[in-house]
Amino acid sequence: MPLVPLVTDDQAPPEVRAVFDDMRATRKTDHINNIWRALARDPKQLQMTWSQVKAVMGPGALDPITKELIYLAVSATNNCEYCLHTHLHAAHAKGMTAAMFAELMQVVVLAAQTNRIAIGLQVPVDERYCAPPF
Amino acid sequence: MPLVPLVTDDQAPPEVRAVFDDMRATRKTDHINNIWRALARDPKQLQMTWSQVKAVMGPGALDPITKELIYLAVSATNNCEYCLHTHLHAAHAKGMTAAMFAELMQVVVLAAQTNRIAIGLQVPVDERYCAPPF
Amino acid sequence: MPLVPLVTDDQAPPEVRAVFDDMRATRKTDHINNIWRALARDPKQLQMTWSQVKAVMGPGALDPITKELIYLAVSATNNCEYCLHTHLHAAHAKGMTAAMFAELMQVVVLAAQTNRIAIGLQVPVDERYCAPPF
Amino acid sequence: MPLVPLVTDDQAPPEVRAVFDDMRATRKTDHINNIWRALARDPKQLQMTWSQVKAVMGPGALDPITKELIYLAVSATNNCEYCLHTHLHAAHAKGMTAAMFAELMQVVVLAAQTNRIAIGLQVPVDERYCAPPF
Amino acid sequence: MPLVPLVTDDQAPPEVRAVFDDMRATRKTDHINNIWRALARDPKQLQMTWSQVKAVMGPGALDPITKELIYLAVSATNNCEYCLHTHLHAAHAKGMTAAMFAELMQVVVLAAQTNRIAIGLQVPVDERYCAPPF
Amino acid sequence: MPLVPLVTDDQAPPEVRAVFDDMRATRKTDHINNIWRALARDPKQLQMTWSQVKAVMGPGALDPITKELIYLAVSATNNCEYCLHTHLHAAHAKGMTAAMFAELMQVVVLAAQTNRIAIGLQVPVDERYCAPPF
Repeated sequence: MPLVPLVTDDQAPPEVRAVFDDMRATRKTDHINNIWRALARDPKQLQMTWSQVKAVMGPGALDPITKELIYLAVSATNNCEYCLHTHLHAAHAKGMTAAMFAELMQVVVLAAQTNRIAIGLQVPVDERYCAPPF
Repeated sequence: MPLVPLVTDDQAPPEVRAVFDDMRATRKTDHINNIWRALARDPKQLQMTWSQVKAVMGPGALDPITKELIYLAVSATNNCEYCLHTHLHAAHAKGMTAAMFAELMQVVVLAAQTNRIAIGLQVPVDERYCAPPF
Repeated sequence: MPLVPLVTDDQAPPEVRAVFDDMRATRKTDHINNIWRALARDPKQLQMTWSQVKAVMGPGALDPITKELIYLAVSATNNCEYCLHTHLHAAHAKGMTAAMFAELMQVVVLAAQTNRIAIGLQVPVDERYCAPPF
Repeated sequence: MPLVPLVTDDQAPPEVRAVFDDMRATRKTDHINNIWRALARDPKQLQMTWSQVKAVMGPGALDPITKELIYLAVSATNNCEYCLHTHLHAAHAKGMTAAMFAELMQVVVLAAQTNRIAIGLQVPVDERYCAPPF
Repeated sequence: MPLVPLVTDDQAPPEVRAVFDDMRATRKTDHINNIWRALARDPKQLQMTWSQVKAVMGPGALDPITKELIYLAVSATNNCEYCLHTHLHAAHAKGMTAAMFAELMQVVVLAAQTNRIAIGLQVPVDERYCAPPF
Repeated sequence: MPLVPLVTDDQAPPEVRAVFDDMRATRKTDHINNIWRALARDPKQLQMTWSQVKAVMGPGALDPITKELIYLAVSATNNCEYCLHTHLHAAHAKGMTAAMFAELMQVVVLAAQTNRIAIGLQVPVDERYCAPPF
């Protein structure tokens, strides 16, 4: 149950409408995800967030699938049901296979495990890893 | 300050010694990371954890650099100082550049942001994303 | 699905009944929230928790609305669906407007973002901020 | 120990220099916080983050002190040593007293407690709190 | 809604079938929990995880009920609805009473509270607790 | 570095002094832990927290060592350096052996792992575990 009403196209003020139009053009789909409809009650945060998504998730030093894998890893670790579902489909649309997703989960779970060991035992960083490598 | 003493080579019982030998051979370095020396007070957990690391972090459907990127993303999200430092060096040794690390952090931070929006507003999953894609 | 049965008025032993009566008088409503009915299976924890809520959430150096805003910020960050819903209504009843809630979420999300940057890059505290300001 | 070198004024490329100049003018201080010097190795993320800080932390429906209180509440909950120290000083500079900080911590700790109860017992949301209040 | 389809007995390849058979023999029940059916799409992770559960949850220096209490404490803290439900029943089957569960929750909530105080105020470790006790 | 100054015996107002005296009598030691000296700047929260510690950590349906094990499990999961160190010593003083601590960490790490699987795959609770067992 959402904490705020989802904004429909009819209810959207012009500045929200402009963001929705840009999403439809950028993503080549008429569907606007619920997170944007919830965020639309605050046009300022809607615009800031959407402009960051566009700036970050495009290709660069990392390819789009890798970015989706990282996104899913964070969402699983942060316990975000919504982002797991939406980005599983986004990753799949960009080419993530079931085998890739299985290995992603293996790494996420392994890191959860070794993170907990390092934290639970308060292991000090080895001197050789203290200086930045680049 | 570690909660348990780090086990030196001299203190290591034979089953710990065997794991350390395998690490040195597998990683082609004489250095044993502190996390293993802390874990070595429990040879059973040492063996279980090391065998998982070997099984998971090798090449498969995902290449080793991508696995290190995912590992770093989880470690940043879990607030694990130790794993951030050690795996930053591991990722760098496998070929991660400064530009790749910068984009990794962009995605980690963006996901932290949208995860919090979806959770903070309790956004319901869009019907179209409810069924698994594979 | 709750892990323990919710205690009805009829099932409540005298010491639970006394807490429920105090809640009704304090909050000027006949409704007892589900969290208290779940906690009522342990009268000791019910009493401790309710007495803390009364001691903390009343007016003091901070006004009641500000306390509800802080409460919501923590609940969003801790991923607590129950507390988000109940305290959204509590905050609204005390005067929080939609515009105030929107700005609250902006700050929660911004802090999620900068917290992750500071942790993900392990930024050291500037010397000038090391000593307590009061 | 930072994962990346902190960028000095001398090392800063023009687009980083421009952000630093704007920070100095906006904050009326010559000091640039370490988080920005760490982030400066990625001018794009530096600019995005700084523009969000400026957009969010100014006065609006909530006053600047209240925003700092919320920021501190999130930082305590996310376990961010860096942000706790820097924003404690920022909040103090904007007028937060020791008494206000003490009550802030009371609410943060109370919410941590009731969040855990609601989650640990999986308490269902009362029907009356399911619909958004605005 | 699961992210991956749950694997039925009929769909299970031989290596999954072997794990399911071992689970049925070990647990003396025909029921295979949903977590294993979800994990079964990746036989490698299924095998690794099941072998760890068997190695860890049996009797040792700690008795099985105590291990279930610890498991529940972590699951409540990690906000894991699935593990709370399944391990509440597992703990109950091994002898955990309602009174024991109530005290478990008291300790989990108290620790959530004092953890947040220590973190929120960044309390330094007393010198006397710096050295490991064993 | 603490966010607030630690209160010395000389600086303590009478109501703080009374709590310190009770701690010394209850714990049969002259040492007051740093967390109480930090909390002492807010006598009200100091009293509330100390009275809860006394009410919860004593013997009941669970014995004191088991309570310390649960406390440590939560502290490791919440990433609380301070509580890990202090309660490791407290648990040791009450009889926790190195072998018990090793098994505690095994369970904490296993639960971190299976929690992440259940969350990462969004596994639905098996129907048979939906109703409370007591």
